[in-house]
Amino acid sequence: MLRTKRIAGRFGLFSRKAWQYPRAMPCATITSALHTSSMTEDHIATLKVRRDRMMQQLHDTCQWGQGERWGSAVIDTGMKRLALTDADKAVRDWFVEEAKSLGCNVTVDEMGNIFAVRPGTNPDLPPIYAGSHLDTQPTGGRYDGILGVMAGLEGLRVLQENDIQTDHPIGLVNWTSEEGARFPITMISSGVWAGVVPLEKAYASQDVGGSGSTVRSELERIGYLGPRPATPEATPMAAHFELHIEQGPILENNQQKIGVVNGAQAYKWFTVVVKGRAAHTGTTPMDARGDALLVAARMINHSNVVANNSGALASTGILTLQPGSVNVIPSHVRFSLDIRSKSDAIVTEVEQKLKRDFAAIAQGRDVEGCTPPSAGTLPMEVTWATDYHSPAVHFDQGCINAVRTSAAGVLGSSELFRDMTSGAGHDSVNTSKHVPTAMIFVPSKGGISHHPEEWTSDEDCALGAAVLLQAMLRYDRGHNSK
Amino acid sequence: MLRTKRIAGRFGLFSRKAWQYPRAMPCATITSALHTSSMTEDHIATLKVRRDRMMQQLHDTCQWGQGERWGSAVIDTGMKRLALTDADKAVRDWFVEEAKSLGCNVTVDEMGNIFAVRPGTNPDLPPIYAGSHLDTQPTGGRYDGILGVMAGLEGLRVLQENDIQTDHPIGLVNWTSEEGARFPITMISSGVWAGVVPLEKAYASQDVGGSGSTVRSELERIGYLGPRPATPEATPMAAHFELHIEQGPILENNQQKIGVVNGAQAYKWFTVVVKGRAAHTGTTPMDARGDALLVAARMINHSNVVANNSGALASTGILTLQPGSVNVIPSHVRFSLDIRSKSDAIVTEVEQKLKRDFAAIAQGRDVEGCTPPSAGTLPMEVTWATDYHSPAVHFDQGCINAVRTSAAGVLGSSELFRDMTSGAGHDSVNTSKHVPTAMIFVPSKGGISHHPEEWTSDEDCALGAAVLLQAMLRYDRGHNSK
Ligand SMILES: [Zn+2]
Ligand SMILES: [Zn+2]
Repeated sequence: MLRTKRIAGRFGLFSRKAWQYPRAMPCATITSALHTSSMTEDHIATLKVRRDRMMQQLHDTCQWGQGERWGSAVIDTGMKRLALTDADKAVRDWFVEEAKSLGCNVTVDEMGNIFAVRPGTNPDLPPIYAGSHLDTQPTGGRYDGILGVMAGLEGLRVLQENDIQTDHPIGLVNWTSEEGARFPITMISSGVWAGVVPLEKAYASQDVGGSGSTVRSELERIGYLGPRPATPEATPMAAHFELHIEQGPILENNQQKIGVVNGAQAYKWFTVVVKGRAAHTGTTPMDARGDALLVAARMINHSNVVANNSGALASTGILTLQPGSVNVIPSHVRFSLDIRSKSDAIVTEVEQKLKRDFAAIAQGRDVEGCTPPSAGTLPMEVTWATDYHSPAVHFDQGCINAVRTSAAGVLGSSELFRDMTSGAGHDSVNTSKHVPTAMIFVPSKGGISHHPEEWTSDEDCALGAAVLLQAMLRYDRGHNSK
Repeated sequence: MLRTKRIAGRFGLFSRKAWQYPRAMPCATITSALHTSSMTEDHIATLKVRRDRMMQQLHDTCQWGQGERWGSAVIDTGMKRLALTDADKAVRDWFVEEAKSLGCNVTVDEMGNIFAVRPGTNPDLPPIYAGSHLDTQPTGGRYDGILGVMAGLEGLRVLQENDIQTDHPIGLVNWTSEEGARFPITMISSGVWAGVVPLEKAYASQDVGGSGSTVRSELERIGYLGPRPATPEATPMAAHFELHIEQGPILENNQQKIGVVNGAQAYKWFTVVVKGRAAHTGTTPMDARGDALLVAARMINHSNVVANNSGALASTGILTLQPGSVNVIPSHVRFSLDIRSKSDAIVTEVEQKLKRDFAAIAQGRDVEGCTPPSAGTLPMEVTWATDYHSPAVHFDQGCINAVRTSAAGVLGSSELFRDMTSGAGHDSVNTSKHVPTAMIFVPSKGGISHHPEEWTSDEDCALGAAVLLQAMLRYDRGHNSK
């Protein structure tokens, strides 16, 4: 059956500001079953999502896992939807029904990953997926992960109500337990799918709350232990696109709307231990001390200087000391050191400089760029242990180009988007090991994430969703090698 | 009855090295009941203790509270004699019997302080006391406190076996629970005696182990809740001398044997809180951080520089942070700051400088002597709370002179002793508020204390005990205003 309609009446439209209407809506007459191969660039660029509908659904489904009071204030957008809890089951059940209502086939694999697939016209092609996660941190917000899934659903809805056909099937995956907050392996289920986390290890991972529940027992309990292997062979993908909040301040600080994410930083985590000598704070002269905390303080400050000079990041998030008494000089200090850069070589360079300089600082020797000890110090021991190493990830140029072109189309001005490297880990890091992958970032207010105050404006969410949808359609059109 | 003896046969003699025999033993003929008023300076200077006997008794009585294994090694001198435990009762019972056997009257006050008094010839005079404590830290050694009591007993023994008479009675006090390790108020019982700790507060102090026992219930349980008020009126003193290990490295590092302690440092304890902003370590550029730990590290380093420039001490023994995750920049850091000097004015000066400079560091402003932030920083809040203030203590010049003269007499060379200020708190700080007081320090190997490796050589213990005994006799002779 053939129909004619004004496109403007069919696409979800929104927004107030000029840059959100980069071009006028075409009043084209088109056939009902619109195939991406026959759409013009202009057609695709005008394809938007219905902002209010998408956001309404995002907030509605946050009834499952609504966060607790946060301190003395109630922050309504706080979320606590730990993976494989009853709240997670509830939103999953809703997700499955919603995807089915949009004409998708839904399957679940052995890690509980849910794949919703809207058929394409070429039965030989694997789906192009959008993907993210519906679980949150215990004191999380409503955008990290959730936005990516909700935007994927909204995209399917727009395709469906506009009868848009694609060569590839268009899929949407909800990856199980991305956060690692309840079961302490981050990106655990995309990790199993990608072969970087063994299935048995994932299944055995236990609830950090000490309940004794495991990933496997909880998958069974909530009815999401699916039959399909979690592998790229059992669930092939043509590509994987993920819309995510930035979780950092770069877009906001630069008044930009979209990050075209070309990969993920390399990072390396270390535990550094400084061993000095406990002594009484009142009876030990300044030049006769082996003050492990003072030396650790110099090291932390120095790591900041060295990383910054190399354009890298260095951070200490954990520090513990012994014996821990107001009048005893600390004998042992243990601290974490997280070094990051988009370049593997720079991470290595910073690591090597710091290993050299920390040894000198522990010996009380002068180190360039580091305040010397004011009164000498007893020589101390410093030891390093490497806890984790994640090399730099480079996303697929075809996917990146699809995102960049879509960002340009949606925003109209190259000043409103930028290429970025993801500072955090995402399921897309795992998918990128097997299939063409890219990500789309939208601004995080104040750079805040994993906190009830995490927030992205409705406008920015909708812009990101439009870029996600358009990038998948462009990828489908074969613009993937542009 | 009159007897004649060679003095050398009557005094406890010891030692191998030349400086330990600063002068030849006189072969004087003296009457049996030798009164301090008729002793010459030479007589007093030759008065020593019996090293081996004293040390044997010290080690024997450490059967009560013998410490546990320390890590993988057994350190035989480890002690765990927490106040008012069965081990403490056992050594107290022994102490009472031993003092009685030396001709002393023994009384116990309402804080369990045990006063052993050997009568003098003038019934109107209060006793000159030696005093220290028999309790230890949970992982303590055999010298802190214990040496002062054992040396006092040995002095009484030397007086007794040599029929030396004094104008003042000569006393020895074992102060209850000096360490504050089991009941967390240090110097609690000399504090009650001196009126600085209210009796009811002391009685109510609870076992840190959570047993619910209080000082009062444990005093009752072990039979040391005496009838006498713990006050200077009920237990008057002419003076208080305390032999103690230095618990620091100054004497050892200067190859000296005796510290003539002229007072105790002023000290002030603070809790400093830095409030920054939690953010993801991977997604937050260096110049967009409110890294509370980085700022705290700069503050700790700066406190060291400022204190050292003022000849003061500054130390941080406790530091905690939140939220404490390897990939989250700390939002809150809380650390202790302990500032000390022998001068109240210098403590105040360092406090004021640091309050000014910490505020500037928290704002990311340049501070003289402090490495500037490498990449800027978000402004942060810093708050100070004063937890404790102990003003400088100045001991009595008469007592100090008696100690200095005795040190000169025992050691022979002014290079072997020095004036010092105590860096730690002692019962003598409390007694000095009411009666003339001074202390004598002997070297601590490696400056180590409150640890099973705490150690002072037998020779140094005996030198200290001789100085203690001689100082009391000199004070008795009225050399207290010299
Ligand atoms: Zn996420
Ligand atoms: Zn002591």
